[in-house]
Amino acid sequence: MTDRLRVGIVGVSGYGGGELARLLAGHPNVELTYVTSGTYAGKPLSAALPGVAKRINLTCEKFDVQTAIERCDLVFLAGEAGLAMEHAPALIAAGKPVIDLSADFRLKNPAHYAQWYKSEHKAQDWIDKATYGLPELNKEAIKASKLIANPGCYPTSAALALAPLLAADLIDRKSIIIDSHSGVSGAGRSKFGLDFHFSEVNESIKPYGVAGVHRHVPEIEQSLSQVAGEPVLITFTPHLSPITRGILTTAYANLKADAGDLQALFNTYYADAPFVVILDAGQFPATKHTEGTNYCHIGMAVDTRTNRVIVISAIDNLVKGAAGQAIQNMNLSCGFDETAGLTMAAVWP
Amino acid sequence: MTDRLRVGIVGVSGYGGGELARLLAGHPNVELTYVTSGTYAGKPLSAALPGVAKRINLTCEKFDVQTAIERCDLVFLAGEAGLAMEHAPALIAAGKPVIDLSADFRLKNPAHYAQWYKSEHKAQDWIDKATYGLPELNKEAIKASKLIANPGCYPTSAALALAPLLAADLIDRKSIIIDSHSGVSGAGRSKFGLDFHFSEVNESIKPYGVAGVHRHVPEIEQSLSQVAGEPVLITFTPHLSPITRGILTTAYANLKADAGDLQALFNTYYADAPFVVILDAGQFPATKHTEGTNYCHIGMAVDTRTNRVIVISAIDNLVKGAAGQAIQNMNLSCGFDETAGLTMAAVWP
Amino acid sequence: MTDRLRVGIVGVSGYGGGELARLLAGHPNVELTYVTSGTYAGKPLSAALPGVAKRINLTCEKFDVQTAIERCDLVFLAGEAGLAMEHAPALIAAGKPVIDLSADFRLKNPAHYAQWYKSEHKAQDWIDKATYGLPELNKEAIKASKLIANPGCYPTSAALALAPLLAADLIDRKSIIIDSHSGVSGAGRSKFGLDFHFSEVNESIKPYGVAGVHRHVPEIEQSLSQVAGEPVLITFTPHLSPITRGILTTAYANLKADAGDLQALFNTYYADAPFVVILDAGQFPATKHTEGTNYCHIGMAVDTRTNRVIVISAIDNLVKGAAGQAIQNMNLSCGFDETAGLTMAAVWP
Amino acid sequence: MTDRLRVGIVGVSGYGGGELARLLAGHPNVELTYVTSGTYAGKPLSAALPGVAKRINLTCEKFDVQTAIERCDLVFLAGEAGLAMEHAPALIAAGKPVIDLSADFRLKNPAHYAQWYKSEHKAQDWIDKATYGLPELNKEAIKASKLIANPGCYPTSAALALAPLLAADLIDRKSIIIDSHSGVSGAGRSKFGLDFHFSEVNESIKPYGVAGVHRHVPEIEQSLSQVAGEPVLITFTPHLSPITRGILTTAYANLKADAGDLQALFNTYYADAPFVVILDAGQFPATKHTEGTNYCHIGMAVDTRTNRVIVISAIDNLVKGAAGQAIQNMNLSCGFDETAGLTMAAVWP
Repeated sequence: MTDRLRVGIVGVSGYGGGELARLLAGHPNVELTYVTSGTYAGKPLSAALPGVAKRINLTCEKFDVQTAIERCDLVFLAGEAGLAMEHAPALIAAGKPVIDLSADFRLKNPAHYAQWYKSEHKAQDWIDKATYGLPELNKEAIKASKLIANPGCYPTSAALALAPLLAADLIDRKSIIIDSHSGVSGAGRSKFGLDFHFSEVNESIKPYGVAGVHRHVPEIEQSLSQVAGEPVLITFTPHLSPITRGILTTAYANLKADAGDLQALFNTYYADAPFVVILDAGQFPATKHTEGTNYCHIGMAVDTRTNRVIVISAIDNLVKGAAGQAIQNMNLSCGFDETAGLTMAAVWP
Repeated sequence: MTDRLRVGIVGVSGYGGGELARLLAGHPNVELTYVTSGTYAGKPLSAALPGVAKRINLTCEKFDVQTAIERCDLVFLAGEAGLAMEHAPALIAAGKPVIDLSADFRLKNPAHYAQWYKSEHKAQDWIDKATYGLPELNKEAIKASKLIANPGCYPTSAALALAPLLAADLIDRKSIIIDSHSGVSGAGRSKFGLDFHFSEVNESIKPYGVAGVHRHVPEIEQSLSQVAGEPVLITFTPHLSPITRGILTTAYANLKADAGDLQALFNTYYADAPFVVILDAGQFPATKHTEGTNYCHIGMAVDTRTNRVIVISAIDNLVKGAAGQAIQNMNLSCGFDETAGLTMAAVWP
Repeated sequence: MTDRLRVGIVGVSGYGGGELARLLAGHPNVELTYVTSGTYAGKPLSAALPGVAKRINLTCEKFDVQTAIERCDLVFLAGEAGLAMEHAPALIAAGKPVIDLSADFRLKNPAHYAQWYKSEHKAQDWIDKATYGLPELNKEAIKASKLIANPGCYPTSAALALAPLLAADLIDRKSIIIDSHSGVSGAGRSKFGLDFHFSEVNESIKPYGVAGVHRHVPEIEQSLSQVAGEPVLITFTPHLSPITRGILTTAYANLKADAGDLQALFNTYYADAPFVVILDAGQFPATKHTEGTNYCHIGMAVDTRTNRVIVISAIDNLVKGAAGQAIQNMNLSCGFDETAGLTMAAVWP
Repeated sequence: MTDRLRVGIVGVSGYGGGELARLLAGHPNVELTYVTSGTYAGKPLSAALPGVAKRINLTCEKFDVQTAIERCDLVFLAGEAGLAMEHAPALIAAGKPVIDLSADFRLKNPAHYAQWYKSEHKAQDWIDKATYGLPELNKEAIKASKLIANPGCYPTSAALALAPLLAADLIDRKSIIIDSHSGVSGAGRSKFGLDFHFSEVNESIKPYGVAGVHRHVPEIEQSLSQVAGEPVLITFTPHLSPITRGILTTAYANLKADAGDLQALFNTYYADAPFVVILDAGQFPATKHTEGTNYCHIGMAVDTRTNRVIVISAIDNLVKGAAGQAIQNMNLSCGFDETAGLTMAAVWP
């Protein structure tokens, strides 16, 4: 095992970190050598993640950047916001690539960061060195990057649904509406409170962050603007639905021209995207079809009565929306097969 | 109890019929005298509905229109499609008002019926005599009606969300998008199949009827056009979510003018609507807040970045979306208090 | 409304208190005049319980015993443990009967209280004045009582399942095993933490309090011993299941004699118990059949291969297991019809 | 890939067959070469299992035994009951080992088969040649076997919970009670009907097969009797719980002697069982800890008040209870590492 890449997970006891551990344990090219957790430091990983007992025999440690440098060839940051701004520079200086699952380096415009995250960005010099890790849009840049900002879950589902239409200049850029429903794991493991209490979430659907106030708005707009080559503003409504994993995004836009064969358009656009599944005409995705996997399923149709296109995407928010995409980014950055460790079928039913 | 209205439920073993039984059993002005079910004929009602044991001591019978006329003063039709077209004329001729929970008499244009329901309407003479039973739009007509077409669940949630905006001519009528998520009971009790198998529905969200093919589209458009005074076309996407009861509708439209105080606008519009709850600014509904009740909760906000209004409504699809609204219609038609039998708080959590 | 009983709910924002509000709002003999909540004091009740908007127009207040005495004829205590030990004496001295939903006065032996609740009982003089409010066992005492200790949820389901067998001396008292699965609302609204986080509870079943360490053990044994006329020790295993409401209890015991017609035995034993439904032979309960109601459904069978009887009961933990039973106790204590306000059919599906 | 074992799945579109496909696709020693389905014959596997799109590019075929012989080195039978009785002899005669997921060859006594399955066994000569595939009890026999009867889901969870206690002669063999709760996928994909309709299963727990009438009773007793060396009769109550995957079994027995250190006893008994996780004292399993994996988690405690031991086991009914165990059996029978293809961490949360 000496020639495997030694990787560390900072924040292994959160849902994103735990999912990294699950997936990396089965990855053919890496060895998991360092896992940190403030809550579980000193305890076996199975105390934090009962479903790894007898499979991953590691002990959680407190995060220490020097230890990470010594023990790892690459580090995933999956802990609280701000970790990457604080520690990525030292890790990268020591030759250790960083894949950051937080929002620290997602937004290219520091003013946007300040506006949406209500604080000044603390490592502005590094923003330009970071690559937004959505491989379906930025594959070549990711291959060359040592600091990868892993996208948010909603932005992944939204960008994949709309990019081909914007690239083909088929839709009115001012007409885009994105309606998303997420499972509760998207809120993370450290948020307790009534909003995530089983009795209050179960059997209920509710919106939140209505009318352009969710922090994923600028991130979605950044990706869509990149593809469109012009600024794109969207209306985005996230909802909380009583499932653990999964995001279903239903996106709407007015067509500017004849849509033609949309399935062909999408298949061509995603010809080099191993994790995007374009469904046949008349087929639509369900979140369960992607559960536990890094795949994004996309279906679409044109409402000919209103000349509007509807594109629907499904992902597992913890995999393609977080840990799986982070590993896909590692694969690209490290020269592994893009799909290494990520080809599992969905856990179904 | 001799001065109570004697009512019958045709199709009591379906979810709509069962809900009528639950609610009518607690209604102060009626006596339930006749319940029919093809599947459970000859068996106690508790065989079909285990949760009425010791509370409703009736036996299911096969439906017979003469028996209904003899035993009832008013009849709810909650069985299969077509019952009302076949039997409402005889019931009404015998002086028995009919409240029909099917789609038989919802559409005013028989061509629309033929187009969306794929068959000729069989009682076209009666279409004009039927009243579309959405009390918040048609209260006076309902009071005078003997044949009430109870609205569909999605159309109720959509019309209540958008009517005040159209009435005030605040939104672009071509910009309306309605995104709805429904619980599984909306599919009814007689649809088996994998689409409703617990293992395949659970933990999954999926769209269906995408791009203007759901039969509720013309019904929603009919209500919105009535309010707008002009034809309205919509884009509507229904989704199946893993809850038993509830519809959350998120409606989008472009503002034509300054929205002003939307809460005030909605509160004024619904001043005489006892079952509509307009939430304070910044508050949004959850389906669970309406569970088991006839109330519709509505919240709204303007996305100032895109000048779009988002209105979100929640109902229980089996109550305000079916049986409760039917009873509200009965109350109006029979001169009872509009809220009689329907003032319960939500079952929560 | 002047001749209605004025009642107060202390702790209205918890799940038990909220359920009291829901049920009392529809009770024909009472008027809800005082609701208290530490968290929501000063806010409308609908801030704590969104599903009462437009139905119950009360404001939450901070609890004050003098105000309770002034405003109420009877007080339900549904707040934290210890409230009844502290305040019931004053309320009763002022002529205000108390129905306490906590465990303060359930155990007749203060040594048991100290052992299981890890603190000395602070109102030992009042233990004998309190009546254990399980109407199916203690109806006459409840009618005469001014301090009623409302039973726990598991103890209700277990005692109702086993009482007829012990009363008839049919089972080996040393062989009783009680295996119960509860919905998450049983944990109450104030317990946050990962144990009740949707993502960790959902799709999971787990035991807790295994091997005689749950505080409901002595309460169950007290009821069963009362019926048996001799001490009864049990093995009890509670489990947390991913539903919001409901307890299913599966009880096992070795038969000492020919069981005969068990359905007849149970029906006779519960002849005066309006809320107990004995299912026909071969029929078994489901928690959903009792949802939102005060009814307990019971089914049973003999395993002739092992000469063991299995009795299975289902209740809604928040109704028959808490608020509904409290109202049943009020009805008895105040001379109302035992079923007043409690005859609703289950919310189903 | 030429030196991989070529394997076929008969009945790939059921839940057991689909799970075999999911797991075998990631197995390092096999190649999936033949998948059959009556329902989906002629269609891509992703039509039956949407979550394999772009991962498993096979077409479903109608089952034909000669084709299976030509295309496979080993065959999993996961279709309807009776397939193995009919086809296993020909497959084995052709040198193709068979792993049967049905109950055809589980019971060693043909009279038991006739009694519990209500029909004569049609291949009685082969019963003795079949090996009951519970590796933790029969590992050496499985290694030498060409016809493996894969255990039922409940029997796996029950036998693993109780075997160490019976082997150590610690419990009264007449006192065993097994109370199990299963997810709905255990009912299979071909059973439609209201019993598995989302709206009726959701939010409900219910027993079935009460009092020794479930077909898994003789299978459990056969395993326990084998370990005990004497006949063991049990009381077994299965329940349906609203989860998709998972079985939680809570087993009770009276201790005959001092239990000593139960964790040590279990750990010793399962020293060579890579998929059994014995939890530390005071820890208990949850079904979610095993989701998607072949692991069985076991916790236990002694109720010193009643001198009874309670052992609780959790498995994923589709993995350790079906497809995963079948692959474990293949691994043993074919000389692969016992854990090959089966070391994944649980999908959690």
